[in-house]
Amino acid sequence: MTAPKFRSQLQPDDPEAVRELVTATGVFSGTEVGWAVEIVETAIERGQSAGYHFLFADGPNGLGGFTCFGPIEGTDNRFDLYWIAVSPKAQGKGLGRKLLSETVAAARALNAAHMFIDTSTRNDYAAARKLYEALGFAHMGTLVDFYSDGDGKALFGRKL
Amino acid sequence: MTAPKFRSQLQPDDPEAVRELVTATGVFSGTEVGWAVEIVETAIERGQSAGYHFLFADGPNGLGGFTCFGPIEGTDNRFDLYWIAVSPKAQGKGLGRKLLSETVAAARALNAAHMFIDTSTRNDYAAARKLYEALGFAHMGTLVDFYSDGDGKALFGRKL
Repeated sequence: MTAPKFRSQLQPDDPEAVRELVTATGVFSGTEVGWAVEIVETAIERGQSAGYHFLFADGPNGLGGFTCFGPIEGTDNRFDLYWIAVSPKAQGKGLGRKLLSETVAAARALNAAHMFIDTSTRNDYAAARKLYEALGFAHMGTLVDFYSDGDGKALFGRKL
Repeated sequence: MTAPKFRSQLQPDDPEAVRELVTATGVFSGTEVGWAVEIVETAIERGQSAGYHFLFADGPNGLGGFTCFGPIEGTDNRFDLYWIAVSPKAQGKGLGRKLLSETVAAARALNAAHMFIDTSTRNDYAAARKLYEALGFAHMGTLVDFYSDGDGKALFGRKL
């Protein structure tokens, strides 16, 4: 593949590109898609004060993937990874791994001391959970049945 | 002690009473005290649409304790216990236990299927963690160093 270009600056068409990408993955609910778009719109409106940072990977077919992360209020430079998503067209080529490792570097540059991630225990998130562990995130617990019966929340974290 | 009276309706002086109580416990930071007051103010302003429910225990010396809880967005009737606090004057008399068990009953009446709680791993929260386990909440994980070095987040949950 053509090497993706990473950028942290938002563009006016990012909300729509994020909506398409997140919808195309097929693993997020309508509510979750709405949240992803809202975060991007809020960041465009309010700028840095919104507390959201992004990494966008632009590829030959438009947006290939993105992450959204930021400081957790009331903590000592702890960051949350709110979103990581890779377009189905760009999956299986190491883009998720590259995005996450660049995000860790970007968070470090923002003085982040630790990063936390939560995700579903469902099978369709297995690749995501594997990626977190591959990049040094420890599985620190599971909230059983958190989202609904049989769908729990898995929690990961690491020192940066 | 005189048996406390429980109520779920908010009163105009609750924000100030909550500020005094939460401050008096000595375990919450200034930021956290501000959050507690803000939640009560938001609930007074916006009513039920804010998504916060309360249980206040009025005793002979004013507010003896309170809980704040509500549905977690994007989940199937899962509730979060946002706050539980007991005034130092009312501590050691079983009020925390009574508040939590009444809160569980109130959440059930609101159709809650599961309840989740998180708290600090610090020693001054040991009594709180013991209380959760005594009332059937399982310790489901710990986010190590979540708040700051040596101060983690302990996660609890139970089916209602």
